[in-house]
Amino acid sequence: MASSTTERCLLWILFLLVCYSTFSPCASKRYEPNWDSLDTRPLPSWYDEAKLGIFIHWGVFSVPSYSSEWFWWNWKGQPLPAISFFMQENYPPDFTYADFAREFTAEFYNPEEWASIFEEAGAKYVVFVSKHHEGFCNWPCKTSFNWNSKAVGPNRDLVGELASAIKSKTSMKFGVYHTLFEWFNPLFLQDKANNFTTQSFVFNRSLPELYELVNNYEPEVVWSDASGGGSAEYWQAQEFIAWLYNDSPVKDTVVTNDRWGSGTDCHHGGFYTCDDRYNPGVLQKHKWENAMTIDHYSWGYRRNAKLTDYLTIEDLLETFVETVSCGGNLLMNIGPTKDGRLIPIFQERLKQLGDWMKVNGEAIYSTRPWTHQNDTVTQRVWYTSKKDRDQNNVYAIILDWPEGDTLTLGVPMTTVATTVSLMGYQGNFNWKKGNTGGIVIEIPPIPVNKIPCMWAWSFKLTGLSN
Amino acid sequence: MASSTTERCLLWILFLLVCYSTFSPCASKRYEPNWDSLDTRPLPSWYDEAKLGIFIHWGVFSVPSYSSEWFWWNWKGQPLPAISFFMQENYPPDFTYADFAREFTAEFYNPEEWASIFEEAGAKYVVFVSKHHEGFCNWPCKTSFNWNSKAVGPNRDLVGELASAIKSKTSMKFGVYHTLFEWFNPLFLQDKANNFTTQSFVFNRSLPELYELVNNYEPEVVWSDASGGGSAEYWQAQEFIAWLYNDSPVKDTVVTNDRWGSGTDCHHGGFYTCDDRYNPGVLQKHKWENAMTIDHYSWGYRRNAKLTDYLTIEDLLETFVETVSCGGNLLMNIGPTKDGRLIPIFQERLKQLGDWMKVNGEAIYSTRPWTHQNDTVTQRVWYTSKKDRDQNNVYAIILDWPEGDTLTLGVPMTTVATTVSLMGYQGNFNWKKGNTGGIVIEIPPIPVNKIPCMWAWSFKLTGLSN
Amino acid sequence: MASSTTERCLLWILFLLVCYSTFSPCASKRYEPNWDSLDTRPLPSWYDEAKLGIFIHWGVFSVPSYSSEWFWWNWKGQPLPAISFFMQENYPPDFTYADFAREFTAEFYNPEEWASIFEEAGAKYVVFVSKHHEGFCNWPCKTSFNWNSKAVGPNRDLVGELASAIKSKTSMKFGVYHTLFEWFNPLFLQDKANNFTTQSFVFNRSLPELYELVNNYEPEVVWSDASGGGSAEYWQAQEFIAWLYNDSPVKDTVVTNDRWGSGTDCHHGGFYTCDDRYNPGVLQKHKWENAMTIDHYSWGYRRNAKLTDYLTIEDLLETFVETVSCGGNLLMNIGPTKDGRLIPIFQERLKQLGDWMKVNGEAIYSTRPWTHQNDTVTQRVWYTSKKDRDQNNVYAIILDWPEGDTLTLGVPMTTVATTVSLMGYQGNFNWKKGNTGGIVIEIPPIPVNKIPCMWAWSFKLTGLSN
Amino acid sequence: MASSTTERCLLWILFLLVCYSTFSPCASKRYEPNWDSLDTRPLPSWYDEAKLGIFIHWGVFSVPSYSSEWFWWNWKGQPLPAISFFMQENYPPDFTYADFAREFTAEFYNPEEWASIFEEAGAKYVVFVSKHHEGFCNWPCKTSFNWNSKAVGPNRDLVGELASAIKSKTSMKFGVYHTLFEWFNPLFLQDKANNFTTQSFVFNRSLPELYELVNNYEPEVVWSDASGGGSAEYWQAQEFIAWLYNDSPVKDTVVTNDRWGSGTDCHHGGFYTCDDRYNPGVLQKHKWENAMTIDHYSWGYRRNAKLTDYLTIEDLLETFVETVSCGGNLLMNIGPTKDGRLIPIFQERLKQLGDWMKVNGEAIYSTRPWTHQNDTVTQRVWYTSKKDRDQNNVYAIILDWPEGDTLTLGVPMTTVATTVSLMGYQGNFNWKKGNTGGIVIEIPPIPVNKIPCMWAWSFKLTGLSN
Repeated sequence: MASSTTERCLLWILFLLVCYSTFSPCASKRYEPNWDSLDTRPLPSWYDEAKLGIFIHWGVFSVPSYSSEWFWWNWKGQPLPAISFFMQENYPPDFTYADFAREFTAEFYNPEEWASIFEEAGAKYVVFVSKHHEGFCNWPCKTSFNWNSKAVGPNRDLVGELASAIKSKTSMKFGVYHTLFEWFNPLFLQDKANNFTTQSFVFNRSLPELYELVNNYEPEVVWSDASGGGSAEYWQAQEFIAWLYNDSPVKDTVVTNDRWGSGTDCHHGGFYTCDDRYNPGVLQKHKWENAMTIDHYSWGYRRNAKLTDYLTIEDLLETFVETVSCGGNLLMNIGPTKDGRLIPIFQERLKQLGDWMKVNGEAIYSTRPWTHQNDTVTQRVWYTSKKDRDQNNVYAIILDWPEGDTLTLGVPMTTVATTVSLMGYQGNFNWKKGNTGGIVIEIPPIPVNKIPCMWAWSFKLTGLSN
Repeated sequence: MASSTTERCLLWILFLLVCYSTFSPCASKRYEPNWDSLDTRPLPSWYDEAKLGIFIHWGVFSVPSYSSEWFWWNWKGQPLPAISFFMQENYPPDFTYADFAREFTAEFYNPEEWASIFEEAGAKYVVFVSKHHEGFCNWPCKTSFNWNSKAVGPNRDLVGELASAIKSKTSMKFGVYHTLFEWFNPLFLQDKANNFTTQSFVFNRSLPELYELVNNYEPEVVWSDASGGGSAEYWQAQEFIAWLYNDSPVKDTVVTNDRWGSGTDCHHGGFYTCDDRYNPGVLQKHKWENAMTIDHYSWGYRRNAKLTDYLTIEDLLETFVETVSCGGNLLMNIGPTKDGRLIPIFQERLKQLGDWMKVNGEAIYSTRPWTHQNDTVTQRVWYTSKKDRDQNNVYAIILDWPEGDTLTLGVPMTTVATTVSLMGYQGNFNWKKGNTGGIVIEIPPIPVNKIPCMWAWSFKLTGLSN
Repeated sequence: MASSTTERCLLWILFLLVCYSTFSPCASKRYEPNWDSLDTRPLPSWYDEAKLGIFIHWGVFSVPSYSSEWFWWNWKGQPLPAISFFMQENYPPDFTYADFAREFTAEFYNPEEWASIFEEAGAKYVVFVSKHHEGFCNWPCKTSFNWNSKAVGPNRDLVGELASAIKSKTSMKFGVYHTLFEWFNPLFLQDKANNFTTQSFVFNRSLPELYELVNNYEPEVVWSDASGGGSAEYWQAQEFIAWLYNDSPVKDTVVTNDRWGSGTDCHHGGFYTCDDRYNPGVLQKHKWENAMTIDHYSWGYRRNAKLTDYLTIEDLLETFVETVSCGGNLLMNIGPTKDGRLIPIFQERLKQLGDWMKVNGEAIYSTRPWTHQNDTVTQRVWYTSKKDRDQNNVYAIILDWPEGDTLTLGVPMTTVATTVSLMGYQGNFNWKKGNTGGIVIEIPPIPVNKIPCMWAWSFKLTGLSN
Repeated sequence: MASSTTERCLLWILFLLVCYSTFSPCASKRYEPNWDSLDTRPLPSWYDEAKLGIFIHWGVFSVPSYSSEWFWWNWKGQPLPAISFFMQENYPPDFTYADFAREFTAEFYNPEEWASIFEEAGAKYVVFVSKHHEGFCNWPCKTSFNWNSKAVGPNRDLVGELASAIKSKTSMKFGVYHTLFEWFNPLFLQDKANNFTTQSFVFNRSLPELYELVNNYEPEVVWSDASGGGSAEYWQAQEFIAWLYNDSPVKDTVVTNDRWGSGTDCHHGGFYTCDDRYNPGVLQKHKWENAMTIDHYSWGYRRNAKLTDYLTIEDLLETFVETVSCGGNLLMNIGPTKDGRLIPIFQERLKQLGDWMKVNGEAIYSTRPWTHQNDTVTQRVWYTSKKDRDQNNVYAIILDWPEGDTLTLGVPMTTVATTVSLMGYQGNFNWKKGNTGGIVIEIPPIPVNKIPCMWAWSFKLTGLSN
């Protein structure tokens, strides 16, 4: 029996009312707490467009600020002689790791200043360590009584203050790193001793923390770390991610990574981080992130780092360009001091990167990997590409300035419409088709005071046929 | 077929042998986890015989060692101006309570020396604070990560070391005090906010600690404190005590107190403590304990205590004698310093008490309350009594030496067999029956160098008819 | 030509006016800076009358408060293994002695409270360590830049505050101890290496300090210490003392001791101290002082002192009575804590002493040694004497209460007018002349509640013929 | 009577042998202790040839490392609100400046590593602060008991260790900075209050220190600072310098500066430093030094310095080139941290400078000011010159790369033999005579990968007629 038009109309109205009420878009898909479902979620687009994030490792390890953020483990877990010696030379015999916490003073911590420095560097998001394997919460977590930054040491909500500064003062996204396991937490060690058949640690500590973090600070990156053992099932990861995608206050924009339990790295979750400093050098099928450090040897601040331990801007740009070309984001790490400062060498690298991005940002932000990543003829060239209205622009970023007066690229297929320019430099360059395809670009003699940047130059090629 | 008498006899003998063999009482009763059942358990006899225990309050509060062991609460919970002022004058503004922990150094902690001092004082048991309301475990508890004496501060198992010293070097019993609630623990505050309908804190913290303490250290006193709210049902007290009585490693000898949740004080459990410094002055129906302090105002060590804040030996003996006479035990508290010392004034009081006990112990240990506690004729006399073979001896302990040359007691009913002597003094004293009953004892003029002790003298009366 | 009587008279009036003006007694003798002259000065009478002073050792050594006030010397000068071990166990390897100074906090230092405690103890003067061999000034001395109590640690003028409290709140005299030498001061070591032929240290440090102390704080005791070598000539002692006696603001009342350079101890200066804890047991020709310690082993506070290391009140009284009987004063030492407290055991001893003095003060204050100090018949009796109008009273202070009902003294020669009483006890005692002279006093049976004190009883004998 | 020729000959030989033996030049002139004489001494040649020194400010001020090395003065002398606030926020109220000393730990101090970094930077000498106005000796000085780096804090001889490292591991010269006055030293304040008519401070402190420093460490630069008042006569400067030039162990090679008392700056002594950061921009008649800082606002390390507070390498080179051109040396200052590190930004600047010196050193070291310092036609060009066998080479150092394809210099007068080259770049450049004299150099288009350095390029001009 056919319903009347009026009836139909009313039903539609009702339907639409339901649909658009309460932030729950009509036909909004709900994810199931299993990887099959969760992995179908499209990554919110801001993340791929962002390309550059800043990673911040800060905690009680920033007090000794020696060796690395694994100080405790390398002192009491798998001892390194250097750390034993350091402790012998500088502390009384009975000194404990938790005794360091009181000196985590953070008196110079100025989150708005940090936010401004990061934004000037060209970063589009920040991932802040909310808790590392030592178990110290950088916020007044309910799970870690007297072992958090409000209860001992800073007497401040380090996470909350940075979240607020970034959200109110910049257009960057705020994210949190959170370790699932803790080296020495007895609850975790008990679960582990039980072969992960019990979940005391998960239900009393790691899960409540994740909910607390997301509900309190609404981070748009949840960067998990489960490298200490335990499956995603043990960690209740799928249940949490389903909530994060379906019901959390950041469900529409949040991204997460892949470190949710043994076997998930590079296989499940949001973007893939695979290993630390993951930089495959070839295009990846899945969106990924290269989490790396300016201090070559440590994520946490090390007082004893030598100048040569810090990556040069050339090193950083090489890694960055290669990463973006192959479809990755770069998450570049710095370690603040115990008193809350970003040491000048970090600021200098960030400023150098920011200067470079002001010139070359077009070749980075919102680009897509091109059909090719590097070149068959000239070494150390990395491609990115970007749709610009109808056409597809290709960016060839060279790490070395051409030796002679031409730059030969093997991959680009020219057309009559092809133009070549250098980012930050006025005018188009002459070119000709290479003998065996590709393109030979005439490089004018640009003196040092005319060159748009000192490292890693981006050539923009339009009107290619590939 | 009927068995022979011999067979029956043998079976009976076997049965009895099994029944009375150690540790396995015949038809051993199992207690149910409810007060009706638990309250039927007879108190192990050692406890009533002991009369004197030492209570020890030690924790992070021993670092500021100012005001009292409630320092944190009186700073941040219900602030006292004196504490705010103390902090302002002596610490940077961002200093936290947990920041104190690092200075809890305990470098002079010598548990064997402590044990010896306590035993010399005449104590028969020791109750050591394993955790106070601040939540700091004085042992490496699994429940309180980095907020315990192994993880921060002393770097030692304070409970374990004392347990071991007392058990191996003395004949005293070792016991633990354990607070159920914690002022600022978020888990507890959450349960409390939920009107105690949730039990996160209980199952994650207080209960596991109790089991850990009993299993690890086998204390023969479990001295609970639940003064912060929550019923015994909330605390799962009955379940725990049932285990303690039925299955714990100390099931046969352990005693516990009555502070197991709102409404239990003075009503359920083992011995009754009722209030702090409970001293009713009249005989109690139920075995009880007077937990009191040598420092009149604090359980924890106070650096700013004046000499007059410490009880004199006269004060202590008055309380002790009154307590024992009325059926109680005295649990006398001292507070060690942050570096692990018992300050000399505490040692002096303990030594004075020990000297007194060497003379008067017979009138104290293993005594029972007499039919009367004090006297109708002479003030400040307290009675105890003790079965000695067939007869019942009565001890009249006088706090003031008689003004004249007689001591008149109204209560004792003499017989021809009655003898009177002074503990520590040779020979019997003359006496006569009082005009209206009682006894008039002739007090010889004992000069100061002949008197067996300087305070609180015990007269032993035998052959009384009451 | 003879002058007229009127003239003579006027001259006399003028002379007398000049004589008695401005505190400068007529024909006031000026002392020469040599012992022959200085030793002729009569000791101001207050000192002999006072009998009891309090000595206070406080300094950076009160921070480790371990071993003794010679901590530094016993660590780096002539090492004791115990101190090396203590440092190893509790401090980082590079820790220095001067590093301790910052923890000398003195936050509980209450000079008015101290003054009141000392006066209640019966003391008539106080000698405060202004500087010990470590060289740390307890006042903002001009000679010791950044190594004094105003510059590092307390941030207070410890000497000045106590001087002010004592002078304004009590009738006690204020005095200072001052060490001439310093263990490790390079200036002193240089002079010493030069065989004391140079005096850099004296003119730049020790002498200016003495003048500064006397001019600023007007101490009435200047208690010098020169035990580290150097003659009085090296130290310019005679010149300083001459100034002290002739021109200083305390010239009329100040007393000084004998430790002014090698060879002066027990030979020159004011009262003699001879050795530490000097207690000769026989009458001395020269006024002397027994400087001793309640802590048997240390002048500075020792955290690790045992109860048995503290003298009992019986020990103290024995020393005191013996000292006074033989013509000495007792300078009883206590060591405050680094935070400025007098620990209760010191307060208890001071209170016990004060209680005793309230009863027995007549037998102590302003007494003179008698013809005999102790007795030929009864051991442990010490005599003092005092002029009372026409007659000479003798006090026999017994350390042990008589065993029987008589006390036989061999020395006193009775007359018919002889009376015997016990200080603090009403009435006179019967006595008879002894068989071979002396006196036999009938001791009534005084019960413990009637005895005026518990230790060391003073019998007053009047009308003796000797 | 005439001696024989043989005799005369032998005597002459003997005389010459003595004359030319090491360290004792024949007829060596002795300087009188007055400026007329002292100012005639020729500056040892190494100093002018060196051009670049490193200045190091390290002391107790490196502990707060806030505001500047004048922290104490700006806290207690002439207070800055920022410092009061800093103290209030981070320290207890009674904290003193000397309390900081204990945290001057220097645990990472590695003098050999420092020496290597300085040498790599191209420096030829190092001037180390031995004592700043706070009075803290960075060596175990005899004058400052317990206020020196051996007695408190580092427990090391900071001066001695660096002296030894530099002398044994590098070819650099070692020098010391030493302040004559001290802000708060009572001896100095007393002399000052006496209008410098007394000299206690000089004879007891500043002079002995200078002798001690020179005798112990044999520095070849004695960099004095007397900015706090007092004439050279007060300071006994002329007497000291006469000894330094005549008899000290470094008499032949030592250089000193001009800060020896009011009125001496820029007038007397060795090289002139005039003011801090003195950079006159025109040729000076007397050898001078530009003492300046990489941190624009402070000589001591400041934790709160921003990146923009540090000079860029461009800033540094501009100052350096201008200074050398005008006849000065550059003494470039860095401030180590309290734990003994040179922070990476300092190391980066030093490395950048070192890289530049490797290319351009020829235009700097051992050069002499030319007839002209800068150019009439092109801005920001600075000249140096150097004798090379017969001819005089001129170096034109340009701070900006030429805008067009020529560089026109107005000053150089060409000849036919004139050649032009760029330091670090192969081959000669074409040039022509300018229309109105001078020279027009053809600048080839050197791409960024061929340019020998990134900042401040040196053109070498030979065969000029001026």
